[in-house]
Amino acid sequence: MTIRDIAQLSGVSVSTVSRVLNNHPDVSEAVRRRVLEVVQESHYVPNNSARDLVRPQSDNIGLVVRGIGNPFFSPVIHAIEAAVEQAGYTLVLHQIHSGEDEMMAGASLARSKKLRGLVLLGGCCDYRSETIAALDIPFVCCTYTNSFGTLAQDAYSSVSIDDQMEAYRAVRELTARGHRNIAVLLDSTCDHSISQLRYKGYCRALEEAGIPLDPRLVEETGTFDLSAAYEGARRLLNRCDDMTAIFAIADSMAIAAMKAVHDSGRRVPEDCSVIAIDGIEISSYTVPTLTTLIQPADQLGGEAVRILLDMVEGRAGNRHVLLHTTLRNGESVHAPK
Amino acid sequence: MTIRDIAQLSGVSVSTVSRVLNNHPDVSEAVRRRVLEVVQESHYVPNNSARDLVRPQSDNIGLVVRGIGNPFFSPVIHAIEAAVEQAGYTLVLHQIHSGEDEMMAGASLARSKKLRGLVLLGGCCDYRSETIAALDIPFVCCTYTNSFGTLAQDAYSSVSIDDQMEAYRAVRELTARGHRNIAVLLDSTCDHSISQLRYKGYCRALEEAGIPLDPRLVEETGTFDLSAAYEGARRLLNRCDDMTAIFAIADSMAIAAMKAVHDSGRRVPEDCSVIAIDGIEISSYTVPTLTTLIQPADQLGGEAVRILLDMVEGRAGNRHVLLHTTLRNGESVHAPK
Repeated sequence: MTIRDIAQLSGVSVSTVSRVLNNHPDVSEAVRRRVLEVVQESHYVPNNSARDLVRPQSDNIGLVVRGIGNPFFSPVIHAIEAAVEQAGYTLVLHQIHSGEDEMMAGASLARSKKLRGLVLLGGCCDYRSETIAALDIPFVCCTYTNSFGTLAQDAYSSVSIDDQMEAYRAVRELTARGHRNIAVLLDSTCDHSISQLRYKGYCRALEEAGIPLDPRLVEETGTFDLSAAYEGARRLLNRCDDMTAIFAIADSMAIAAMKAVHDSGRRVPEDCSVIAIDGIEISSYTVPTLTTLIQPADQLGGEAVRILLDMVEGRAGNRHVLLHTTLRNGESVHAPK
Repeated sequence: MTIRDIAQLSGVSVSTVSRVLNNHPDVSEAVRRRVLEVVQESHYVPNNSARDLVRPQSDNIGLVVRGIGNPFFSPVIHAIEAAVEQAGYTLVLHQIHSGEDEMMAGASLARSKKLRGLVLLGGCCDYRSETIAALDIPFVCCTYTNSFGTLAQDAYSSVSIDDQMEAYRAVRELTARGHRNIAVLLDSTCDHSISQLRYKGYCRALEEAGIPLDPRLVEETGTFDLSAAYEGARRLLNRCDDMTAIFAIADSMAIAAMKAVHDSGRRVPEDCSVIAIDGIEISSYTVPTLTTLIQPADQLGGEAVRILLDMVEGRAGNRHVLLHTTLRNGESVHAPK
């Protein structure tokens, strides 16, 4: 695919395509849209080396956030913005809904905002080489990695926790205290995302403790929303009289679950323990204080920018950083009665 | 101050200053910095009309957020970003600490990122014409207005609630139920910011109910941090045995206060009622559910962008929008025992 093909497909001259790609103002909005649509559909990657000789480089770093409502992301975004600013770049923020494709959104942003690099905060974990073909700038997956995909390790960068291992650790906190009827409250068991990874950790901890997997105790909410988590926990409480603990895959979901336990006339932790992963600030101030594995939010954001700028400035190639959580012993986990 | 003065002060030629101001690549980083420092120190406003003829306009809209940790800001930022994107502009995010001057930060961002307009999310309420002199683009104060300043109404735009009136309403919910020993948990009584406005509303509600102001019941935390709010509430609980209710000026502070009440061996609302203003999502899921006045976060963000783009695109001048809160009757307010 060359610039000539794009011109032909768009029905305009090569120089018009060039003007669009170089963001010249003297192109009508209709033509600009048509050309960019063709560029996008055909996954055309412009030859930047020639362009960069004539145009000043932008200093834009993109941040595509998938699930902006997630309170865990606030300190991560803060850390990213601070690191980008400090390095003299500009952060361009773009939010997408949980159903949107972050790679397509990132590629489109990269083109329209002349990004130098991109941080993806939240996303799927099943990229293939076709998925990232449209993205011709360095990028870093932040808070997740490509666990279900087929990309070569040197084809992308990531900074995350080991979601499966940390979920395993969380559920081990419950089995170690003697819990056997442990529910899991999660987005999905098969979304190729961190929800599925944490579910795998849950399954592994049960298996290791010799506890058979009970489908009644698996509650998929289809989202990370508080209201969906609350309703999911209510369903668990209704159908599982014998449940003594809930592993919620996120703090916010755990807070909603604790409310549901309370509203069903039971007590946390006496009647039902609750444990989670994230460590958002407010979960230290719930009644009772949530027991959770705290993700290093500042480090996740800071490392993502460090890796990205090392690539943008040509100091290093793609790399992967795995960070660890810290257990906060709150008040929401007891031994079962 | 002209471009010649800047050149003389920087020790470079006029054409070098021009190249710096136009972001030409052929200037050394050291010279660029020196010139921009002089520009900033001297509050030099470049003559844009000449420049705009030759350079393509940016489509950047700036968002300066003061207090990014504030969970109430998350949905407002979401609404702002969505509205900016939908209108075809680019959102450039910049966070500042609570002590920083948002106007200086905004003016600097406007220059370096060639902003078309600026939204200030959180800020002081005491601007004078000198304060805004450095800012030569349209701007909107979002979630606050210039209550303590001397700016003419047509010199700035704002979208906010009536903080004093809404605080008055919140405290009236308590006095109407018979509370008389009502504490206020706030950032500051005299910071020329929304904290002071909400304090004034508290005072007015007490006065109207014939309750003398008791300084023991006024707790200033100096910040909106959860930990500071928690400690402040603990101090209130220690020194005021007769306190039957707390008005916290923000939901997050109220959540910390409820935790403090619980940790002191008292119950919300039986021993101490708690009411607040904001309506963050998570305060629906606390035990007990927080009673609060919900700010219209989506509308605050959406209106701010609408006002701003009306100015950027020349459809209208500065204007002010006042929005209302909605009472959510939670479980944290009872009559005193």
